[in-house]
Amino acid sequence: MPFQPPRHPATINTVEIDGMARTLFRPMGADGVYARTAAYETVIEKLAQLISSYRDPEAEILRFPPVMSRHQLEKSGYLKSFPNLLGCVCALHGSEAEINGAVARHDAGGDWTTSLTPADLVLSPAACYPVYPIAAERGPVPEAGYVFDIAADVFRHEPSKEIDRFQSFRMREYVCIGSPDQVASFRNRWMERATTIADLLEVPYQMEQASDPFFGRMGQMKAVAQLQAALKFELLIPVRSNEKQTACMSFNYHKEHFGTVWDMKLASGELAHSGCVAFGMDRLAVALFAVHGLDTAKWPDGVRNALSL
Amino acid sequence: MPFQPPRHPATINTVEIDGMARTLFRPMGADGVYARTAAYETVIEKLAQLISSYRDPEAEILRFPPVMSRHQLEKSGYLKSFPNLLGCVCALHGSEAEINGAVARHDAGGDWTTSLTPADLVLSPAACYPVYPIAAERGPVPEAGYVFDIAADVFRHEPSKEIDRFQSFRMREYVCIGSPDQVASFRNRWMERATTIADLLEVPYQMEQASDPFFGRMGQMKAVAQLQAALKFELLIPVRSNEKQTACMSFNYHKEHFGTVWDMKLASGELAHSGCVAFGMDRLAVALFAVHGLDTAKWPDGVRNALSL
Repeated sequence: MPFQPPRHPATINTVEIDGMARTLFRPMGADGVYARTAAYETVIEKLAQLISSYRDPEAEILRFPPVMSRHQLEKSGYLKSFPNLLGCVCALHGSEAEINGAVARHDAGGDWTTSLTPADLVLSPAACYPVYPIAAERGPVPEAGYVFDIAADVFRHEPSKEIDRFQSFRMREYVCIGSPDQVASFRNRWMERATTIADLLEVPYQMEQASDPFFGRMGQMKAVAQLQAALKFELLIPVRSNEKQTACMSFNYHKEHFGTVWDMKLASGELAHSGCVAFGMDRLAVALFAVHGLDTAKWPDGVRNALSL
Repeated sequence: MPFQPPRHPATINTVEIDGMARTLFRPMGADGVYARTAAYETVIEKLAQLISSYRDPEAEILRFPPVMSRHQLEKSGYLKSFPNLLGCVCALHGSEAEINGAVARHDAGGDWTTSLTPADLVLSPAACYPVYPIAAERGPVPEAGYVFDIAADVFRHEPSKEIDRFQSFRMREYVCIGSPDQVASFRNRWMERATTIADLLEVPYQMEQASDPFFGRMGQMKAVAQLQAALKFELLIPVRSNEKQTACMSFNYHKEHFGTVWDMKLASGELAHSGCVAFGMDRLAVALFAVHGLDTAKWPDGVRNALSL
């Protein structure tokens, strides 16, 4: 896909961005974790409706809570790629005396957290991980493949003061499971629809090949391999600057990874392939406010119509 | 408030409840953590709209992510009361070599979680904890007091196979901060509105004085004190049985607790009091399906109208 020149003057600067955060959010005492105001949440809801209006009619809707099975995420291979970003749920699992001891330590100015041990849950780092075991349990993938419409609050442990990098954020996804052709056609169709949505929202954007932020020096090799195989594209919007644009949507091909992990097969007996398109709802909302201003009443008519504002 | 006799025959039994879970949810490999189907989510959304329609006009809307500052929750005194229920976010904070070491242990069949250390975040155990420091930072509470409309996905570490006990669930709250009289009037008004809402939903219910599930033997004394001071009421619905009803809403008076914690004062210089009404959105939705059946198209006309279904 060719480079799309920004359609709006790049007037965004850090001062504006800081002012933006003060208007859209309230601080909660931790970087990348913010209380959201009514105006901001309205845009999130309207964006979700716009994205729903493009949903494939056969899609099965599922909504996930912000936590998922630790075992399922471990089995999915997440630790191999992003161990530094994972949030694991830990709790006080001891006896009454042990728990009272931890609390007494805290009351005396000590550290109660040394008594924490891991629960069987993690904070979901992406919306789609729980969908593959659910699909796999149903037996062979139907002839037409699966399309799921899913959403979750996800978590990535990367505290940052940058307004476009959250630790906790909303991720909407469409997921396709089926043959390689079905997944390729799904991803192509969504890369088209995504640009239609970005056009309707009148934001400058470009679609680029991308790689995930794999951990460490070994991760750099994975990133190169991912780029070479064109497994990931991103729709980028210049939220903070034109030089360092913000990935607001991604279009991913997992090949047979989840088929292998969950022993999920097509009727033919071959491993199922999968792919997903992910919408970073909070990044899209921030991008809209950055491009069109803080007062939604003054947004361009076309954008207001598209969002039914 | 007098006992309200159930208005519907109590035909609910465990077999039906199990079937209900299979229809409304998809398993995610952990008790009390479920994927939610479209029909279920529609009821959650419509319930939220119904509750919004009773919102005080002056209410300030804030929406919180599922995690909050650990320091803020510790300061709020949560560990003294419910240390066993808290989920703390832990992560791999070490060097690249240390993190690679943890992953290598996991790959070799060992335990990577021994390298986890606590982040500065916890999973929010109730929606309202983050609102008090936000209000306190604004200076003295205005003459009219504050009313907030808040919501969050909350977490309580109490795995259970019972359909009305989730580890991760949606909590909606209205919170009042002000003088003792303002908070008392707020709570009385919401106890009335809550019964109006329950009547519209045509569910059997009773309003009862209640206590929180304080931890341990020491906690039993707190529960007695809470009952004696009438600090908590609950709206109970017979979801699983008439004998052990399910608390679906609660009406809480915190006295000056959060005023003291956050040094939050009235214009007079006295400590601010606070109270909240909390709606367990997932419990309310489950109650509706338990009482009216799994097919929302067959729910009574009155209920369908109230929910704009």
